[in-house]
Amino acid sequence: MTDISQSISVVNIGLESFYTELAEQNVPAVQVDWRPPAGGDVGLIDKLARLQCPEVEAANAQTLSRLMNSRPLWVDVLPAIDAIPGMEHNNLLHSGPPIAFGDMCDPQQRAVEAAAIFEGWVSDRAGLVAKLNSGDIRLRPNYAFGSVGAMCGIISPSMQVIVTNNATYGNRSWSTFNEGKGNVIWMGTYNEGTIERLRWMRDVLAPGLRAALRTRDEGIDIFKIIAEGTSMGDEVHARSAACTLLLLRQLTPMLLAADIKRRVVAQIIEFLGQNNHSFLSLTLTACKAAADAAHGIPHSTVVTAMSRNGVNFALRVGGIADEWFIAPTAPMDEAIYYSGYGPTDAAGDIGDSAIVETAGLGGMIIGAAPSISSFVGGSMQHSRQAMAAMRSICAGANPAFAPGAVDFTPAPVGIDIRKVVRLGLTPIIDTGVLHKASGVGQIGTGIARAPMAAFTKALAGMPLPR
Amino acid sequence: MTDISQSISVVNIGLESFYTELAEQNVPAVQVDWRPPAGGDVGLIDKLARLQCPEVEAANAQTLSRLMNSRPLWVDVLPAIDAIPGMEHNNLLHSGPPIAFGDMCDPQQRAVEAAAIFEGWVSDRAGLVAKLNSGDIRLRPNYAFGSVGAMCGIISPSMQVIVTNNATYGNRSWSTFNEGKGNVIWMGTYNEGTIERLRWMRDVLAPGLRAALRTRDEGIDIFKIIAEGTSMGDEVHARSAACTLLLLRQLTPMLLAADIKRRVVAQIIEFLGQNNHSFLSLTLTACKAAADAAHGIPHSTVVTAMSRNGVNFALRVGGIADEWFIAPTAPMDEAIYYSGYGPTDAAGDIGDSAIVETAGLGGMIIGAAPSISSFVGGSMQHSRQAMAAMRSICAGANPAFAPGAVDFTPAPVGIDIRKVVRLGLTPIIDTGVLHKASGVGQIGTGIARAPMAAFTKALAGMPLPR
Repeated sequence: MTDISQSISVVNIGLESFYTELAEQNVPAVQVDWRPPAGGDVGLIDKLARLQCPEVEAANAQTLSRLMNSRPLWVDVLPAIDAIPGMEHNNLLHSGPPIAFGDMCDPQQRAVEAAAIFEGWVSDRAGLVAKLNSGDIRLRPNYAFGSVGAMCGIISPSMQVIVTNNATYGNRSWSTFNEGKGNVIWMGTYNEGTIERLRWMRDVLAPGLRAALRTRDEGIDIFKIIAEGTSMGDEVHARSAACTLLLLRQLTPMLLAADIKRRVVAQIIEFLGQNNHSFLSLTLTACKAAADAAHGIPHSTVVTAMSRNGVNFALRVGGIADEWFIAPTAPMDEAIYYSGYGPTDAAGDIGDSAIVETAGLGGMIIGAAPSISSFVGGSMQHSRQAMAAMRSICAGANPAFAPGAVDFTPAPVGIDIRKVVRLGLTPIIDTGVLHKASGVGQIGTGIARAPMAAFTKALAGMPLPR
Repeated sequence: MTDISQSISVVNIGLESFYTELAEQNVPAVQVDWRPPAGGDVGLIDKLARLQCPEVEAANAQTLSRLMNSRPLWVDVLPAIDAIPGMEHNNLLHSGPPIAFGDMCDPQQRAVEAAAIFEGWVSDRAGLVAKLNSGDIRLRPNYAFGSVGAMCGIISPSMQVIVTNNATYGNRSWSTFNEGKGNVIWMGTYNEGTIERLRWMRDVLAPGLRAALRTRDEGIDIFKIIAEGTSMGDEVHARSAACTLLLLRQLTPMLLAADIKRRVVAQIIEFLGQNNHSFLSLTLTACKAAADAAHGIPHSTVVTAMSRNGVNFALRVGGIADEWFIAPTAPMDEAIYYSGYGPTDAAGDIGDSAIVETAGLGGMIIGAAPSISSFVGGSMQHSRQAMAAMRSICAGANPAFAPGAVDFTPAPVGIDIRKVVRLGLTPIIDTGVLHKASGVGQIGTGIARAPMAAFTKALAGMPLPR
C-alpha cells in the first residue's frame, strides 16, 4: 500500500517546469500558481504588511458601501459649458491624464481637431496647433472636472451632455452621447458627415431628450437598467445591446409625451435604437458618479478611478484625495484584431471608460456577456475563471449585478491595490482598439490590462494608518 | 501492478443499487444509467428495429430541413373569422385536443365563458351551457385550423389575430395577442376589466398594429428576433423579455410612420412594453408555421405538433398525415409553485404552446434563459444537462438558435419518437401552471413532461417503410 512507485503524487508550488516534467511522466501532480508577493520587492512587501490593518479594512468597507449604495439617475441634458462646473469657454476636455497635443496618440489628435472644427474655432490642423500654442484653445482632462468620455473622450463647450445625478450622495457626472459606428470622433476618425452628425446631436437629439426627461419628476435609474441588462447578455462596457433596448422602453413613452415633433421622435428613436452602444454613455456617467462618491475616504486602498489617453494610464485610490498615479499603458496584445491588423498597428489603451471596471462592471463581469467570452479564451468556463481572478483582487462583490449566465455570481467590486500588488494581477478592461496612425478608427476589440506600475506607485504613495 | 485489491474499478450498467454499494465501500465505480429499450416492450422493440432504416432517416432529414428553412413573418392583423380558413361564426377555438365543455378543466371553462361574454353571445355560465347544448356555440380545437393559443388558448371570431406567413413554404398560422398578467383569459380567470381589455385589444391595439405592419412591404422576421433573443436570456417560452424589446425596436418606427394618433401609439407601446410575454404569441405562430410546413413527409418519425388542453395531451408525427395521438397529461409535480400552492391544486398541463418545444425552442434550449435554470435544478450545469438530454431524443440541432450562455450549443430540434421511446425519455415543456378550481389563474411555473403513452401510441401507429 505504501509502494512509492504506485502511490506518489506531487503538489508543486511555484516554478512550473517541475510540474510539467512530472506530468509528462504521468506522475499525478497539481500545479499551484505561486509567485512571491509583490514580485519579491521587499519595500512593497513591507508596505503591504503595514496596510493589513483594521483602519484600511474599515475604510475599504466604507468605500464599497458608497459604491454600492449610489443611485445614479439621468436627470437632464445640457450644453457642456453650462453643465460642467469649472469648464471654460476655450476648453476641450479629453480622456485620460493630462497630455500636450503633440504627445497625444494620433486618433485623439484627430478627435480634438474635429471638435475644434465643430466649435467653429478652426478649419484645419494648422489652425488648431496655432490656437493651442497661443492658448486660445486649452486642452484639459475630463478627470479634472468629473466628466467622462469613451475612447478619445472629447467634450467641447457647445456639445450637449448627459447630466447624471447620484441621488444618494448628490454628486454629478457628465458625458456626451454616443455617436455610433463609422466616422466618429470617439474612435478618432471624422469627415464632413461626422461634424454634421455632431450638429444634429446638439440641435435635435439633445433638445428632444431634454424635453423627454422633463416629462417626469425623477430621472432614469441607470443602475436599475444595468441590473436587468447584465442578465440579458450585457457586461455594459463592450456590449450594451440589452440596456439600450431597456432604455428605449423607458424613453419612448417620455418622448411621445413631450412636446416634440413626431418626425423628430422617430429620428431620435432610430438613432438610439440602431446603435448598441447608445447606453454606454449613461453607464460611464453612472459609474463615475458612484466612484466619485466613494472617493476620499482616508486609508482606503480601493481604486476610485482608472483612465487612459492612449499613451498613459492613470488611477486614483480612495484614500489619497488629490493625487493620480500614472504609468505608460500596457501593450494591446490580448485584443482581437479585425482582419489585416495586429498589435503593432494599435494606439495605446484609451478612454475614461475604465471607470466601468472601477465600479465593478465591464471586465469584472465578463461572464455576463457570453458573446465576448472570446476576449478571455472563448468559453463560459474561461469567463468564469476571469471573474474569479478579478474577484481575487477586489474588496467585495455586488449582488445588485449578478449575471444569470454565471449562476448569478455577484460582480467583483472595489479593486484593492493591495491585492493587485500582492498577487501581481491587474484588472482587465474591456475596450476597443484604435489604429495608431491611419485615421481608420477602430481596428479591434478585446481586453486591455491595467499596467502594474500605476498600482505599485499608488501603493508606495499610501500613507500608513499608524 | 495487477493486484486486484488496488486496481479494481467497476462499470455498473443498470440496477443502481449495485453501484451504490460499491461506492459506499470506496470501490471506484461508474454508474451507467441503462434501462431496457422501450421499457422492455417486445412489440415496441421490434417496431423500433424495423424503423431503423434509410427511409426514415431520409424523411426525418427532410422534416428537419423544412423546420429549419422556414422563415415565418408577421405580416398582418385580422379578425379571426376573416383570417382563419374554415372557422365558422359560432366557433370558439381552444387549445389541445377536442374536448366537451363538461370535460374541460376549470380554467379553460372560465376562458370559454369569458370569450362568449366578450362576443355578446351570453351573459353567464347557464346561458353558455344552454347555447353549447343547442349547438348555437360550437367548441373546436385550434389544431383543426392551424391556429395556436397559449394556455387556455381561446380564439373567438371577432378577436383579432396575428397573421404569420411562412415565407419559405407559403403556409400560415394565427394566434391572439397576449393579454399580460392578472385577470386574463389565457390563464383562465376574468372579471369585467378582462372583457374591457379584450375590447381594447380588438378596437385599438389590433387596428394600430395592422396599420403599422402595412407601412412596409415585408413583415417582421420572427425567427430573426428569436435568434438574437436566445442570446439575451430568452428561451422564448417561459421568458420572452428580450424578444419583446427587440420587437418594440422594430415596431416603434413603424407605429410612428403609420396614420395612428400619437396617444394611441403611446398606449400600444406601453401595452406591449410592460408585458414580457408580448412576443410569445409571435413565437407560437412562427413555430406552428414552421412545424406545419414540416408535417406530412411519409416515414418521418419527427413530432410536428404537441398540444394540451389541461386534461389530455396530443401529438402529431410528420409521417402520419391525419392522426393525433392522445394520452392523459402527466402530473405537474416538477413545477415551482407560488407560496401556498402545490401539485394537488394544479390543473393539468395546458396550451398549444408546446409547439415551441416541437420547433426546438423553449425547454429544448432552457440554457438560453439562466433565470429559469431553477426549472431543472438551479444551475447552468443543470440547464446544460437538460439540453443534452433533449439532444438525445432529437433528430438534429439548429445552429440558428445557439444560446451564448451555453457556449453557443445549437438548439436540439426535431423530437424523434423512436428515440423518445427507446430511451424512455419524453420532452420537457416550459409552462405556467393554473389552479384546477378556484379561478385564481396562475399558481406556478416550471416544466411539464410530455406523457410517454402518446409517443408509444404514435410509434405503434407508424407504418413500416417495407
